[in-house]
Amino acid sequence: MSENRAQTPRPAVILLSGGLDSATVMAIAHSQGFTPYAMSFAYGQRQAVELDAAKRVVGAFGAREHKIVEIDLRAFGGSALTADIDVPKDRPVDGMSAEIPITYVPARNTIFLSYALAWAEVLGAFDIFIGVNAVDYSGYPDCRGEFIEAYQKMANLATAATIEGKGAFTIHTPLLTLTKTEIIQKGIGLGVDYGMTHSCYDPVDDLACGRCDSCVLRQDGFTQAGLNDPTRYVDKA
Amino acid sequence: MSENRAQTPRPAVILLSGGLDSATVMAIAHSQGFTPYAMSFAYGQRQAVELDAAKRVVGAFGAREHKIVEIDLRAFGGSALTADIDVPKDRPVDGMSAEIPITYVPARNTIFLSYALAWAEVLGAFDIFIGVNAVDYSGYPDCRGEFIEAYQKMANLATAATIEGKGAFTIHTPLLTLTKTEIIQKGIGLGVDYGMTHSCYDPVDDLACGRCDSCVLRQDGFTQAGLNDPTRYVDKA
Repeated sequence: MSENRAQTPRPAVILLSGGLDSATVMAIAHSQGFTPYAMSFAYGQRQAVELDAAKRVVGAFGAREHKIVEIDLRAFGGSALTADIDVPKDRPVDGMSAEIPITYVPARNTIFLSYALAWAEVLGAFDIFIGVNAVDYSGYPDCRGEFIEAYQKMANLATAATIEGKGAFTIHTPLLTLTKTEIIQKGIGLGVDYGMTHSCYDPVDDLACGRCDSCVLRQDGFTQAGLNDPTRYVDKA
Repeated sequence: MSENRAQTPRPAVILLSGGLDSATVMAIAHSQGFTPYAMSFAYGQRQAVELDAAKRVVGAFGAREHKIVEIDLRAFGGSALTADIDVPKDRPVDGMSAEIPITYVPARNTIFLSYALAWAEVLGAFDIFIGVNAVDYSGYPDCRGEFIEAYQKMANLATAATIEGKGAFTIHTPLLTLTKTEIIQKGIGLGVDYGMTHSCYDPVDDLACGRCDSCVLRQDGFTQAGLNDPTRYVDKA
C-alpha cells in the first residue's frame, strides 16, 4: 500500500472504471513512473458508458494496453448496479455512510483484484493500483484498508511469481484516505481533465443524472474544491 | 477449513470441475448435510469435456443449482491449460512435485474462489468447498493450506455479510492433506462412481490420454488403492 516512486519504469496494472477516482489513480501511477496496463470490466452494469470514459482516460495517459474483461455479475444479482433495483436519489452526502448501500456489488473488488492479479503475473508486474476510498464509501466493506491488506497478503501466497521469489505484490491505494475534494485537487495538479470521466450510477445516454450518490459526492467534491465541475448533467445539458 | 458436520441443512457453494477430486468434495459436502450449490467454470480450457462430467456429478448428488460461469482466462495466456503449449506427458508420479508445472494457470483458484464468494453472499451461504490438494499438487501455490487460510481471512473482510455480522465464511478443503489413493477410498465409501468424472488435461474427444500428469496420478491412485479405474482411456477404448 506504499506510494513510493518507482526507480525505473515498471509495469503496473491499473483498475480503471472510467470514473473520477480511477482516472486520478491512473494519473498518480503515471506520475510515479509506472508503465500503466489498464484493466476495465464489462459486467452488465447500468453505467456501461463508463467504458467509453475509461478508453478516453487510457488515451490521455498512454497506457501500454487496455484489457476489457467481460464478466457476468448479473448472474449473482444482489445489487442495484447489476439487478433491476432502483438507484437511490437525492441523498445528502452526510447520510450516505451509515449503512452498506444498495449499490454494493457482492465481492466485486475481490473479483476485480483477482483478474488484475492474474494479468500482473502474466505481465511480470508486481504493482496493482485500485481507486478504493474509505472516506466517501465507508459503507463498502471492500473499500477499506484492512480488506486491501488482507488481499495483498493472500496475493503473495497465491501465485507462482512470489513462490519462485521473483518479487512481492503491492496493492496501491493512493486515494484510500482522501476526501473527494482532495482527490479532485490531486488530479487537477496532475493534469486530469475530469470532463473525460464518468461517475453516474444511472445515466441517461451519456448524461449524468446529478442525483445518485455518486453524482452528489462528485458535485460536492468540486464545490468544496472551489472548482468548476465539467460533468454534463441531464438538467444542465 | 473445518470439516464439522452441519447441524441443520445449510447451503454451501461447491467448486466443481468434474474431476475426481471435486466429485469427492461434492460427496463429502453432501454427506455432511450441506445443501450443495455447484459452481463450474468454462474458461477456454482444453478439457471442456470436464463440464459434461460436472453435470453428471451434479445429477448424482442432487445439487440445488449448477452455475456455469464463463470466464476468458485465455486472454491472460501463461498456461498449458489455456494457451497453445504442449501438455507434458509420461512423467513419473515422484517427478511431478519438484517445480511449478506448466499446467499452472495464473491466479486460477483466486478467481474461482472470488466468484464462489460472490455467489455465497447472494445465497446467504457461508460455506465454500474446494478440492485443493497439497500432496499431489504441491507445485501449485494456490493449492496450499496457507493460501486457503489467507483467502479465508480476506473473504471475511470483503463482504457485507460478514461486516453486518450475519456469519463468517469457511473455506472447506477436505482433500488438502490426502493422497490420491485416500481420496479415491473416501469417495468410494461415499458412493462416488468415478466413471462419471474426468481428469485428463489433454483428452481426445471424451477419452482420457492416460499420459498427462493428471492421468498418471489418477491411474496410480487407483492402483495403490487396489481398485479398478473406470476411466475410458484412448489406448484401451
